[in-house]
Amino acid sequence: MGVIIRGGTVVTAEQTFRADVYCEDGLIKAVGADLEAPGGAEVIDAGGCYVMPGGIDPHTHMELPFMGTVATEDFFSGTVAGMAGGTTTIIDFVIPNPQQSLLEAFHTWRGWADKAASDYSFHVAVTWWDDSVHRDMGTLVEQHGVNSFKHFMAYKNAIMADDEVLVNSFTRCLELGAIPTVHAENGELVFRLQQKLLAQGLTGPEGHPLSRPPEVEGEAANRAIQVARVLGVPVYLVHVSVEEALDAIRRGQDSGQAVFGEVLAGHLLVDDSVYRHPDWDIAAAHVMSPPFRAKKHQDALWHGLQSGRLHTTATDHCCFCTEQKAMGKDNFAKIPNGTGGVEDRLPVLWHHGVNSGRLTMNDFVRITSANAARIFNLYPRKGTVQVGADADLIVWDPAAHKTISARTQFQKVSTNIFEGMEIQGLPVYTLSQGVITHALGESRAVRGAGRYLNRPAFPPVYEAIQKRNALATPTAVAR
Amino acid sequence: MGVIIRGGTVVTAEQTFRADVYCEDGLIKAVGADLEAPGGAEVIDAGGCYVMPGGIDPHTHMELPFMGTVATEDFFSGTVAGMAGGTTTIIDFVIPNPQQSLLEAFHTWRGWADKAASDYSFHVAVTWWDDSVHRDMGTLVEQHGVNSFKHFMAYKNAIMADDEVLVNSFTRCLELGAIPTVHAENGELVFRLQQKLLAQGLTGPEGHPLSRPPEVEGEAANRAIQVARVLGVPVYLVHVSVEEALDAIRRGQDSGQAVFGEVLAGHLLVDDSVYRHPDWDIAAAHVMSPPFRAKKHQDALWHGLQSGRLHTTATDHCCFCTEQKAMGKDNFAKIPNGTGGVEDRLPVLWHHGVNSGRLTMNDFVRITSANAARIFNLYPRKGTVQVGADADLIVWDPAAHKTISARTQFQKVSTNIFEGMEIQGLPVYTLSQGVITHALGESRAVRGAGRYLNRPAFPPVYEAIQKRNALATPTAVAR
Amino acid sequence: MGVIIRGGTVVTAEQTFRADVYCEDGLIKAVGADLEAPGGAEVIDAGGCYVMPGGIDPHTHMELPFMGTVATEDFFSGTVAGMAGGTTTIIDFVIPNPQQSLLEAFHTWRGWADKAASDYSFHVAVTWWDDSVHRDMGTLVEQHGVNSFKHFMAYKNAIMADDEVLVNSFTRCLELGAIPTVHAENGELVFRLQQKLLAQGLTGPEGHPLSRPPEVEGEAANRAIQVARVLGVPVYLVHVSVEEALDAIRRGQDSGQAVFGEVLAGHLLVDDSVYRHPDWDIAAAHVMSPPFRAKKHQDALWHGLQSGRLHTTATDHCCFCTEQKAMGKDNFAKIPNGTGGVEDRLPVLWHHGVNSGRLTMNDFVRITSANAARIFNLYPRKGTVQVGADADLIVWDPAAHKTISARTQFQKVSTNIFEGMEIQGLPVYTLSQGVITHALGESRAVRGAGRYLNRPAFPPVYEAIQKRNALATPTAVAR
Amino acid sequence: MGVIIRGGTVVTAEQTFRADVYCEDGLIKAVGADLEAPGGAEVIDAGGCYVMPGGIDPHTHMELPFMGTVATEDFFSGTVAGMAGGTTTIIDFVIPNPQQSLLEAFHTWRGWADKAASDYSFHVAVTWWDDSVHRDMGTLVEQHGVNSFKHFMAYKNAIMADDEVLVNSFTRCLELGAIPTVHAENGELVFRLQQKLLAQGLTGPEGHPLSRPPEVEGEAANRAIQVARVLGVPVYLVHVSVEEALDAIRRGQDSGQAVFGEVLAGHLLVDDSVYRHPDWDIAAAHVMSPPFRAKKHQDALWHGLQSGRLHTTATDHCCFCTEQKAMGKDNFAKIPNGTGGVEDRLPVLWHHGVNSGRLTMNDFVRITSANAARIFNLYPRKGTVQVGADADLIVWDPAAHKTISARTQFQKVSTNIFEGMEIQGLPVYTLSQGVITHALGESRAVRGAGRYLNRPAFPPVYEAIQKRNALATPTAVAR
Repeated sequence: MGVIIRGGTVVTAEQTFRADVYCEDGLIKAVGADLEAPGGAEVIDAGGCYVMPGGIDPHTHMELPFMGTVATEDFFSGTVAGMAGGTTTIIDFVIPNPQQSLLEAFHTWRGWADKAASDYSFHVAVTWWDDSVHRDMGTLVEQHGVNSFKHFMAYKNAIMADDEVLVNSFTRCLELGAIPTVHAENGELVFRLQQKLLAQGLTGPEGHPLSRPPEVEGEAANRAIQVARVLGVPVYLVHVSVEEALDAIRRGQDSGQAVFGEVLAGHLLVDDSVYRHPDWDIAAAHVMSPPFRAKKHQDALWHGLQSGRLHTTATDHCCFCTEQKAMGKDNFAKIPNGTGGVEDRLPVLWHHGVNSGRLTMNDFVRITSANAARIFNLYPRKGTVQVGADADLIVWDPAAHKTISARTQFQKVSTNIFEGMEIQGLPVYTLSQGVITHALGESRAVRGAGRYLNRPAFPPVYEAIQKRNALATPTAVAR
Repeated sequence: MGVIIRGGTVVTAEQTFRADVYCEDGLIKAVGADLEAPGGAEVIDAGGCYVMPGGIDPHTHMELPFMGTVATEDFFSGTVAGMAGGTTTIIDFVIPNPQQSLLEAFHTWRGWADKAASDYSFHVAVTWWDDSVHRDMGTLVEQHGVNSFKHFMAYKNAIMADDEVLVNSFTRCLELGAIPTVHAENGELVFRLQQKLLAQGLTGPEGHPLSRPPEVEGEAANRAIQVARVLGVPVYLVHVSVEEALDAIRRGQDSGQAVFGEVLAGHLLVDDSVYRHPDWDIAAAHVMSPPFRAKKHQDALWHGLQSGRLHTTATDHCCFCTEQKAMGKDNFAKIPNGTGGVEDRLPVLWHHGVNSGRLTMNDFVRITSANAARIFNLYPRKGTVQVGADADLIVWDPAAHKTISARTQFQKVSTNIFEGMEIQGLPVYTLSQGVITHALGESRAVRGAGRYLNRPAFPPVYEAIQKRNALATPTAVAR
Repeated sequence: MGVIIRGGTVVTAEQTFRADVYCEDGLIKAVGADLEAPGGAEVIDAGGCYVMPGGIDPHTHMELPFMGTVATEDFFSGTVAGMAGGTTTIIDFVIPNPQQSLLEAFHTWRGWADKAASDYSFHVAVTWWDDSVHRDMGTLVEQHGVNSFKHFMAYKNAIMADDEVLVNSFTRCLELGAIPTVHAENGELVFRLQQKLLAQGLTGPEGHPLSRPPEVEGEAANRAIQVARVLGVPVYLVHVSVEEALDAIRRGQDSGQAVFGEVLAGHLLVDDSVYRHPDWDIAAAHVMSPPFRAKKHQDALWHGLQSGRLHTTATDHCCFCTEQKAMGKDNFAKIPNGTGGVEDRLPVLWHHGVNSGRLTMNDFVRITSANAARIFNLYPRKGTVQVGADADLIVWDPAAHKTISARTQFQKVSTNIFEGMEIQGLPVYTLSQGVITHALGESRAVRGAGRYLNRPAFPPVYEAIQKRNALATPTAVAR
Repeated sequence: MGVIIRGGTVVTAEQTFRADVYCEDGLIKAVGADLEAPGGAEVIDAGGCYVMPGGIDPHTHMELPFMGTVATEDFFSGTVAGMAGGTTTIIDFVIPNPQQSLLEAFHTWRGWADKAASDYSFHVAVTWWDDSVHRDMGTLVEQHGVNSFKHFMAYKNAIMADDEVLVNSFTRCLELGAIPTVHAENGELVFRLQQKLLAQGLTGPEGHPLSRPPEVEGEAANRAIQVARVLGVPVYLVHVSVEEALDAIRRGQDSGQAVFGEVLAGHLLVDDSVYRHPDWDIAAAHVMSPPFRAKKHQDALWHGLQSGRLHTTATDHCCFCTEQKAMGKDNFAKIPNGTGGVEDRLPVLWHHGVNSGRLTMNDFVRITSANAARIFNLYPRKGTVQVGADADLIVWDPAAHKTISARTQFQKVSTNIFEGMEIQGLPVYTLSQGVITHALGESRAVRGAGRYLNRPAFPPVYEAIQKRNALATPTAVAR
């Protein structure tokens, strides 16, 4: 039995048009004016609303074991919160410890994610290197639907990938048709600055941004991009937070290179004054890496979205409660890094993006959904509204409004980085697999209803890259 | 009676998929696997071929009166040649003389264009300013489907628009929801350099590029973009030919401004060595403005297309025969400016873009058709393959090949700037309004079958601009 | 009878060393350790102090008739104030009205300047064009020691130079070996924005910066630089106030072009919040063009001085009292443009430049004196401390401090843009022509003691430019 | 007994003036018009000639043990060749092996250099890290006159410094007031590309530049600069050879950072076509790192010198004969890296710099001598013509000319990268320590006459840096 969304205006990354949408068997079955729906179909009145593809959050960490504790949000609560805010797909991360088998870690995460209420997929981190890593990457791509690998350039003495690992793994990604992604911060500098600040007696959260200044990110971003360039592989930068990193992305793109950039909702809207908040708990609640930045970077990031230099928005959703944050009471470097946001991303981007005239509604769909689907090869199954696509949809009321607060959120964490923000524009219905999973503020999500998404290798960007690399092979001089 | 295209792979700006396409009454009626077609439908076998939206050339000058003569290609022959090469829509230019009524000129051009074989539309040039120009711009937008106005920053003592005209006209465009476009060359400098070179005895075609160095274009591009920025209006730069202009575009875009860039097929593939050709006729045949450039600019322009800095490709198709070019035998500044290309754009871009790995096939559709349709508000009527769109389609055989030559072309001119170029990838069928107008090298075009396309005001880019401008209104300080 | 400065540390643009300095007959006669001085020589004890060349302010407007009134500071009071603050040379401006003879205006200004107490020279503005202007420029260079001409790209309907004037005058400068200088603001845009703001009811001083946004300056700076580039002439930008203009300068320099930039002390230290001051008089007192800017531009300008992108510092000293400013009570566009500063430049730059670690002491001499002398061909007569140079010297006490205030200044104007600023580092003695003209806070200046400085044509930058231009002459193709 | 240079024109970095120069006891004793010289003084007739400070080559490798062999040029022959071409000071490199004591290596090199005929000094390389390295750096600075340390970011598995070594050593440099210098190439990428090319069968010298593309240098340059920026230390980049690295330098400088750049004469004038020379020996003779580059980089480098982005010129003089180069007959990665040039630098820079109008004569002195002296704290003892300075001088005949050839050079190597180049402008006399050491093409150099130059810590750039760093210390938030 299906669902028909009547009277709305469909918005995709390319078009805006009046149409009804009919869903059945998990798929969009029809898009058109004045559709006939079978008797018994559930009817959603979308008058005055926009009908858009559900959001894809390509960067979350549900129930992540990290820095000696575990993120509070699990795959069920996290996907419930996502759908409350219009996000119907997440791509989370498998993060093996150094020396741990990638496959083993993958299966561990798959087990944890069984409880997810919406569809999900996994990037897998490469935190070390040997022949087994090389082999497991192949297995993951060929047998397990993984087409992206993550590299942390920060976190020295833990999961940091040095240049040798980067070069090995990027090369392997190219063979496999996978996308390497990077967390770009120079871990060596972060380590040095942490030591220096602690030695100076700066132990509070205000030391956190000082230990990770913009240059630390700009340098690593440039390095990752140039390594990718030399090797002929596309590259995706997660959570770009500073103009310096954006400049590195521009340089790559402007020389014809395939470089993708992601920005977090938080980095667009929260600035680094939070770390000097008189309440330690509030300051610590904002500790994440890269940190929130001076306001000028926010303008740059918005411009990056407007100009197409940045492609996707995400949250790096990774929740720790006040007691967990207190682990770093005497040492900011021990505060578990992470903030929430999977529930808030679409509303805050609509309010500050679309309502402010920074983005068109088509841009909104592009950066919340369509681009992530394209880059990670889920399009057009996800990321658009068309016949045959998965019926992951949101009905968006541009007049609805609320004040964001931890007290009223679905997210399972005691704080919210957007606390008190008044926003206009909200999803009134969310559909996952053609089923209404959130309606008028109430969750109807089902534990375990989400599916693991296989993402095929060789996403579209590889079409040109493979030809280009083949033509670029040099030949020896005859002497 | 319809046409069914069977067995092909549909390529749009976003997707690539196997589907049949059925056309009737000028429109695409169905897109899907294994379509049923009514008996009597004409069948095109597209096995091994790509089915794409017909090209849009947003920059042509058919039968233009210019520099004391008239371009040889008329609206019939020009659209026939266009369809031979897969272009099914042209946007030509109405160019009033200074002091001439814009409306009068518009009607003159409309009369000339009646003979066109494919659909067409018009940009209107603003070459002078007074209240009647202000008024006529309104009439053209509101009653005649014009949503773009052209400004020549070059051609001093003729049609050059100075800063005062630019500021007036851009301001008016903003009120009307129209797109200002500019030919960016500093006319004052061109004039001075022409005089200086002629005084030095450089009267041949080699003087032409020397009189229009890259900085002349870069300066004007930057000026137009900054004027648009200050006034809050989008802007479109025609025939971007140098890195300096591309840099000006990047600066605008990177500060969040709506700047569109067009590049000519010729500028991507022909370099300035042609002006030093020992045969005067051949050198003169390449005289156009901006001139062909040093090779390094070609790389920059390709990168601009790859990175999305440049949006559209065009030809500035404006044909003059050898005898006409000879008007400047003793003075390069009197050689009628213009070259052909409407027939060759798609094939040369496919060969040098797609086959070389610079562009994906989706990129190809984006820069030959979809983007032009979006910017000038013809989308999705033009620029994509979907039900309800105009059935302007091409069936593209990636294995077909030929050698480009003036001897075998449909273009009505004695030369070809791509003479001798071997290319692979050609349209084997072209449909306009659902009718096969070119098939297997033979034209079936019908004189006068083309329609004038009304283009509504306020194209999508204005959605955000209007909100932004409204929010930016300053307020006085209370004292 | 001479003056000996004993026990100080000499600082030039290149070196810092302990030495005594002996002056006689207006010149430096000896520099060395433990100098013998003739009996009767006046002795200055410079223990703990620095001995530096007197400042050169290359941008002042003493007793300028402007916007319907006359600047309050005359050539005597202005040079007295300058020497109080360590500036011993000013380069002022002759500004002919359109249609006025350049020579006539030059002689008028020469007459006014007879009363100057320190040495001075003149740039001459080119505000219109005909054959007489062309001829007078030659006369001024060849017979009157003028080697620089000024061009206002703003002030439409008054002294604005359009592109045609720029091209003509720059070309003439190149022939004569003179330096063209520009006030870079797009006058057409300023005019339009003034009209728009006034129409919106924004008549107060807060409208002033809104009518001259950064892009207005950036555009004009780029245009002037590109025009100079195409013509092969060096160019000097006065009062660079925004990052956009600095970027245009960088682009020129980075392509090997000779582009010089000047920055005002005010633009380095005062921001645009002043225009929203609740007291109209205070807001209006800060009205000058280009206006004071948002803080981020100050960082950029300091970086420009540090990196050598910007060469000189100046003040644009042009004083109007509160009653004069009140002429624009109902219309900000009628507030006489100008602020003071000739007395404060060196102290504020020392405090905010040297004390803060932005500049070395050698940098300080470079940007307050040596570079201006080199660019305008007064070096080494001015701008350094060496035998044979003019004995224009300052003895600088790095421990002296004061609070800047209009109540205690020598400048003849009722306000001070640095009011209340506490600074450390002051000149305790100033010498002009080997005579102590300011000592320990007291002026000993003599009306009319200043001399007009002839500045020879073809300053050093022309050495390379002439060779380069000669080699760049193109040749015709033989056919 | 002294030497008087009569009738010449003295050229320094700042001034050009007619003067005689008298030298005695190794020093310049007088500079002035029509000097009286003691009877018996040797007289040099400098009529029509320029008198300039001797060149400083801040980058040479005499008798270096490298890649399994030893450079052919020793400290005697190398300094003789230097003086033949007007270079009177070299700064060579002490390069300890990993695990070798820095002090031990320093003493070894000091012993080798005893035979030098002109003055010399040493940079010391930091190729590994432990506490002894930290301690030895202090000893070298405080007791041995070393104020600069070198870091190789290339040469993996040999002398490569990874990020951890860079951070440690840069931090130590800052404490000591020393200048860190870097060879900027990403060694990890070079290693990977070498393996890949060799696996593809590209074993010849044409593989060398392919294994070290521009991005490899640009990335490392950016990394070194950003690391220095974060740590607050100045940094000097040796042998900048590509626009990408220059851009990284500009970015640093334009944000107010102290970044110095050096360029080799070879990189300004030789392009990468040499590696495809049909004669293996000739191709191999040009193997050095970074390799010679595509022509467009030469323009960029010249512009860097013109704009002050690059400060010094050098040669990386490191000579290997044809038989030595043959060690890499089957594997380009085994060809000993290095080329000559210490003899040719000044003449080729004069010809292609000054004669072409790229540089003024003052610029020439600046980039061949004065800037190196300032950066490495030898100024004004070296680098200028003034009383009290070392009498290291050259008398330069702008009319003299020759054709460069290995057959006629003083350099002890069988090839010359400038072979066959015709140049105009040569030193006719060279003086070292006030003694004529080269005259009219004949060497009068004396083995062992050169002195080791102690270079004091805290060169001028540190004046501002120390203040800046002190003011930048953060403070904790009171909670």
